Amino acid sequence: MKGAVLYGPRDIRFEERDAPRIIAPTDAILRLSATCICGSDLWPYRGISPVAEPSPMGHEYCGIVEEVGKAVTSIRPGQFVIGSFATSDNTCPHCRYGYQSSCVHREFMSGAQAPVLRVPHADGTLVATPELPPAEMIPNLLAVSDVLGTGWFAAVAANVQPGKTAVVVGDGAVGLLGVLAARQLGAQRVIAMSRHPARQQLAREFGATDIVTERGDEGVARIKELTKGVGADAVLECVGTQESMMQAIHATRPGGSVGYVGVPHGVELRGEELFYTHVRLHGGPAPVRRFLPDLIGLVWSGKINPGKVFDLTLPLDQVAEGYRAMDERRAIKTLLRP
Amino acid sequence: MKGAVLYGPRDIRFEERDAPRIIAPTDAILRLSATCICGSDLWPYRGISPVAEPSPMGHEYCGIVEEVGKAVTSIRPGQFVIGSFATSDNTCPHCRYGYQSSCVHREFMSGAQAPVLRVPHADGTLVATPELPPAEMIPNLLAVSDVLGTGWFAAVAANVQPGKTAVVVGDGAVGLLGVLAARQLGAQRVIAMSRHPARQQLAREFGATDIVTERGDEGVARIKELTKGVGADAVLECVGTQESMMQAIHATRPGGSVGYVGVPHGVELRGEELFYTHVRLHGGPAPVRRFLPDLIGLVWSGKINPGKVFDLTLPLDQVAEGYRAMDERRAIKTLLRP
Repeated sequence: MKGAVLYGPRDIRFEERDAPRIIAPTDAILRLSATCICGSDLWPYRGISPVAEPSPMGHEYCGIVEEVGKAVTSIRPGQFVIGSFATSDNTCPHCRYGYQSSCVHREFMSGAQAPVLRVPHADGTLVATPELPPAEMIPNLLAVSDVLGTGWFAAVAANVQPGKTAVVVGDGAVGLLGVLAARQLGAQRVIAMSRHPARQQLAREFGATDIVTERGDEGVARIKELTKGVGADAVLECVGTQESMMQAIHATRPGGSVGYVGVPHGVELRGEELFYTHVRLHGGPAPVRRFLPDLIGLVWSGKINPGKVFDLTLPLDQVAEGYRAMDERRAIKTLLRP
Repeated sequence: MKGAVLYGPRDIRFEERDAPRIIAPTDAILRLSATCICGSDLWPYRGISPVAEPSPMGHEYCGIVEEVGKAVTSIRPGQFVIGSFATSDNTCPHCRYGYQSSCVHREFMSGAQAPVLRVPHADGTLVATPELPPAEMIPNLLAVSDVLGTGWFAAVAANVQPGKTAVVVGDGAVGLLGVLAARQLGAQRVIAMSRHPARQQLAREFGATDIVTERGDEGVARIKELTKGVGADAVLECVGTQESMMQAIHATRPGGSVGYVGVPHGVELRGEELFYTHVRLHGGPAPVRRFLPDLIGLVWSGKINPGKVFDLTLPLDQVAEGYRAMDERRAIKTLLRP
């Protein structure tokens, strides 16, 4: 089969790879219905995270089970399933506390920008839909796999509560779905920070009540202004840079919470500065598995349409153009059809 | 009157100062029944925090109201009152959220190592006892003013829950009262990290179930061992150094919480490292005012005896010896009698 492999900065190739097969008895093999490119794939693509050797790319996926290992009991061939970018046994103590992305058996998935994928710990990682979904629902289900699950965790980690004010830093796909999540979790006011008209528009569709175009200290001042000088109850940090993290922390009221899901790159927090902000900080790789059943339910019932973040759809063999479009911010997120 | 003034590293003087008087109509003047030396006073005493000019010291206090300004309505002369090291109006939005130590009118108290003290925003800062306390209760009430309130906030910020496991990093007075707080809040297991026999003993009296003498990575390994490899649900960081903070973070399970109340000195947190720990972080200057009514109630009813942390009592004019004893770790905490 052919899949996407990153060789170095901006050098993504669609090339022949060995087809995955069952290795451990807890594995499953999926034929993917759709896959996509993640904002986090751009870190190595841009050379910001080094690439030591050619790396099969992709960790967002949904599709039909082709084969399962002998130990798999809850997933069977023919089912349509969705999994997280982090595998989990869903039984270890960390999983039972809802932190499946810190599972003792965690592996970070890769190689999902391909037609076929091996998923370890299938029983603990994959969740099946009630029946085979209609084609038009597939982008929504694919979004659940990472980008919605991550935006949702940002909102949960930021302790979004009904009636409260949430701010979302970052207008990438995760940030936009953070807006959707904050709204679904009952925030009365959701302030999206974005200076990009198409993303502002989508933020509004997902439930943003206000848009702030300023950044950094000016952005913080604007949030203070909009909250009568108090600061926001909940701030979702969906970027991962020093500037975005400090913007999130300073936009939060004392006792409020920052939920951060953008993988931090070069972020350093000064203990004393953090101390006097009185902010709560929680984040990390999203435990998407915790949210999968509920989020699949919301998609299945038509209550949410997170697949709207895919504003470019390409056949898998044009994966390189998909990366370019996201790198140049021509596309929010690229869906790939194997 | 005479009070304690810090001139520079290890240069504390007991010298004549102007007696405080009402300045603003919201002030109160207290005649102090007892005052004490805080672990945080040792930072400037040791020259770690610079002292720009001679500074009146002390921010923990309780005593009898002598006079109140014209705008004070809830406190009256003759009452025995306790206040926090941070003044608060107790009506601003931050106060209403329970973060009185981020009050828009916050002032950090100083000059309490003296017989008489001016307290701004008396109505929002001071809480009166039901009646005048017996002499033997005064150390317990003095402890509420900062060291118990701060240990209590560490436990609350670390999200200590009934039946869970708490770890306390730091065996100073705040850490020891963090042990008491964690136990009062229902922790089933409270692991105190201390290598000092007298402090271990007091930790046990306050409810510690286990003592760990190892520090740093070895301390973390021991906590992991005691929690079946999982890590603690709640960790109270009561020191404020890079080592203690990292020890606290790494002793916590994914999804568990670190409550940090040691004023950070030179602490830097790497965003990416924090991200993958999945730890919750909350702390800052303790909003003691939030807890004052409940903590005074616990002392008044005899349920807790936090004043046990005072293992040295001196007349106020021997304040310099009080500092020396704490600096040399001969005393946990020095109570001073004006």
